[in-house]
Amino acid sequence: MNYKVVAHTLGWVMNIEAACMVLPLICAIIYREPEAMTFGISIAICLVLGLCLTLKAPKKKDMYAKEGMVAVALSWIVISILGALPFVISGYIPNFVDALFETVSGFTTTGASILTDVEALPKSMLFWRSFTHWIGGMGVLVFIVAILPLSGGANMHLIKAESPGPSVGKLVPKVKSTAMILYGIYLGLTATEIVFLLFAGMDTFSAITLTFGTVGTGGFGVLNSSVADYSNAVQIIITVFMLLCGINFSIYYMLLLGKVRDAAKSSELWVYLGVVALSIFAISINCSGLYETVGDTVRHSAFQVASIITTTGYGTTDFDLWPSFSKTILVLLMFMGACAGSTGGGIKVSRIVILFKSILKEVKLSAHPKTTYKLTMDGHIIEHSVLRAVNVYMAAYLMIFVLSLLIISLDNFDFTTNFTAVTATINNIGPGLSKVGPTCNFSQFSSLSKLVCIADMLVGRLEIFPILVLFTPHTWRK
Amino acid sequence: MNYKVVAHTLGWVMNIEAACMVLPLICAIIYREPEAMTFGISIAICLVLGLCLTLKAPKKKDMYAKEGMVAVALSWIVISILGALPFVISGYIPNFVDALFETVSGFTTTGASILTDVEALPKSMLFWRSFTHWIGGMGVLVFIVAILPLSGGANMHLIKAESPGPSVGKLVPKVKSTAMILYGIYLGLTATEIVFLLFAGMDTFSAITLTFGTVGTGGFGVLNSSVADYSNAVQIIITVFMLLCGINFSIYYMLLLGKVRDAAKSSELWVYLGVVALSIFAISINCSGLYETVGDTVRHSAFQVASIITTTGYGTTDFDLWPSFSKTILVLLMFMGACAGSTGGGIKVSRIVILFKSILKEVKLSAHPKTTYKLTMDGHIIEHSVLRAVNVYMAAYLMIFVLSLLIISLDNFDFTTNFTAVTATINNIGPGLSKVGPTCNFSQFSSLSKLVCIADMLVGRLEIFPILVLFTPHTWRK
Repeated sequence: MNYKVVAHTLGWVMNIEAACMVLPLICAIIYREPEAMTFGISIAICLVLGLCLTLKAPKKKDMYAKEGMVAVALSWIVISILGALPFVISGYIPNFVDALFETVSGFTTTGASILTDVEALPKSMLFWRSFTHWIGGMGVLVFIVAILPLSGGANMHLIKAESPGPSVGKLVPKVKSTAMILYGIYLGLTATEIVFLLFAGMDTFSAITLTFGTVGTGGFGVLNSSVADYSNAVQIIITVFMLLCGINFSIYYMLLLGKVRDAAKSSELWVYLGVVALSIFAISINCSGLYETVGDTVRHSAFQVASIITTTGYGTTDFDLWPSFSKTILVLLMFMGACAGSTGGGIKVSRIVILFKSILKEVKLSAHPKTTYKLTMDGHIIEHSVLRAVNVYMAAYLMIFVLSLLIISLDNFDFTTNFTAVTATINNIGPGLSKVGPTCNFSQFSSLSKLVCIADMLVGRLEIFPILVLFTPHTWRK
Repeated sequence: MNYKVVAHTLGWVMNIEAACMVLPLICAIIYREPEAMTFGISIAICLVLGLCLTLKAPKKKDMYAKEGMVAVALSWIVISILGALPFVISGYIPNFVDALFETVSGFTTTGASILTDVEALPKSMLFWRSFTHWIGGMGVLVFIVAILPLSGGANMHLIKAESPGPSVGKLVPKVKSTAMILYGIYLGLTATEIVFLLFAGMDTFSAITLTFGTVGTGGFGVLNSSVADYSNAVQIIITVFMLLCGINFSIYYMLLLGKVRDAAKSSELWVYLGVVALSIFAISINCSGLYETVGDTVRHSAFQVASIITTTGYGTTDFDLWPSFSKTILVLLMFMGACAGSTGGGIKVSRIVILFKSILKEVKLSAHPKTTYKLTMDGHIIEHSVLRAVNVYMAAYLMIFVLSLLIISLDNFDFTTNFTAVTATINNIGPGLSKVGPTCNFSQFSSLSKLVCIADMLVGRLEIFPILVLFTPHTWRK
């Protein structure tokens, strides 16, 4: 294990976090909030630690898969701990576990909260809270790869460990350029949504924070009612942008290059859009009569479906009051999640498609054992290693789910609460059902359960393996 | 597709079902119940249909994997439909869907019931209901293989399609002899339990019916209170026999041959026993104070754990009233199930062990991508085809689970009810939580949901693929 290169990476993560905190500092200064001091102290702490680790560049710059995994897992733990500082220092979330929960929920774009009154927070705190979504959405290591001159191996292994989806597709031969293009698209989507929201009559602060929550598919809002009290226009804009950010960003790159046909060949995209359309239709039928007009029903249904499948977690209505069938659809969408290579969480549509194809293959094989079939997707053969990784991912996902469910049940809440609390955190959604429904929050859980949720959010965002590698003794053996 | 050989197999299944119904007929005669007529008519129907199909032996006796799968899937559907006849003809379960539910629940050793008052049934009906567990426990095709002179290929493919577990181990080189040995052990366990229960002071009728439910890991009782009203001795005997019947029967064969060391090498056995011990311990701690003495707590805890992990479904107490942690343990045991090659259902301990090993391998691989690791179990390398089958089984299992959950939720019950109803049927347990808890039953569901449960019970018992093959158009293409 090349400890020095891992430490160096961690140092840069801290420096960048310090830089990120300058934005809420400016926000505090603009709104003349005393929290400017809080952010000043936090920036100083991040910088001192970061500079200690980055002043001396390591001699051996080699980074292999193991170092990449460990660096990514540790980076996410470190940014979460340091990111919690402003909440603790300002005293708005004095309990450290609570502050860590809120920050991890932010960076992992989960959006689950332990706050009972969001509106009590000053604007700069709300800004930081939402900004963590934006940072975590595309990933802080992807950002480092985009801006720092690292070795090619480091670039690849960091991106591989941080990016969601069963296989990482490089947009262009160089990993570094891929990272820059991804951040370019991300910035483009962010700017566009802010403009749209401003046009819809929203104030600048809300437009920026809600956009962070949307494009990062996070879900932290600035009102206790989430998105319910905004105009229909705002709700529709957010619905569209949530859905856009659940799409694989490589599709946008193809569109930018004018390769519309290639983009249209993506089976993941069509399955995603198909599931969205079908879910909105089924829920609208099932919930007909709950709202005044058909338009309202479809709007609420579309918003909630978009929010859940992209694992954002915003809400315009309390879906815990919907009929059982609609609630079950939402719970299933929580597991499915968005497309690979998007900012969304969950198992990912492409994994589901691959699993479905492997079932069909096995059914044919069990009837005709001597034939050979090749699994393909979008015209390419699915490599055996990808298939194995998907299968093992599912198995590990289930084991962690089960273990989390068991520990959380010690708090003695009902099964629905426990089950959906784990679902909502491991898939980076935010709200669940029953006691963690859209109008409730995670504050009632014990510290142990909160720590389990924190672990689940990290495991979900990093797709399990970096965290498992970090905690396997095998990794640390000489 | 060799239709004739499939039809011939189905014919024999019907003949054997007619023979099986002679036992409840005798029971009706002994207890002078008018239902003797019912069973007479049912036997006649089975025999007429069966003889039509078996009088002429097919010229081409070849049976391949496809025919094996289709024959097994159809056999289970046919025995269930014909097995429901006595309930419908006698008028005790006039609705055909209900009668089919009860019969499928019997044959698949699920033990879920739509009856609200079991004690209203005459003894011969109760006998038939429990006897279906015994027939389904080891499998009717295994019985056919044991007694009929079929071709070697037919023997192998029928056993493969009907036996539970990730890979079918032959005890002896000849499949036919393996089937005979399995039925021998099964008969031995049955006789032993009956003797034990008689010694504990139970009447002959109850001893026989409860033994059918135990060794088949079914769960139908003859009292509304399941096993709660019997003596402690009876409860302990049943606990032990449930656990014994959840063990891979090849272990007993090894023991009979004196190969104690080989038997002790089975990692599946140790994981199974370990999970049982740990669960009893955890639940006893968690439920301390609920019962008068520590002994009572441990007895109830042990009974429920044994009943659920072996997917039997008998109860001595209403575990729906237990604390959340204990209930969660039981729900997880429902999924785990018993050992492969036992009469129990669920995912099976060996599959869980294989999945766990594949996760460990992948964690090591993701840190050291260039190394090669071989997965082994009990000293043997796990074949790639077995690993793939386990993974695809899990994927198919999840998809069917999800689809069932969605349809059942149309009845608008709570999430816990829907979730555990699917869990309890697809894993062949019987009771779930909330509205399908130990003191409740499945009568409140709509016919659509009952049909979904029926499908899930069959899918669970046959481990998915025979049913999927049956309903894939690919199977029927020339």
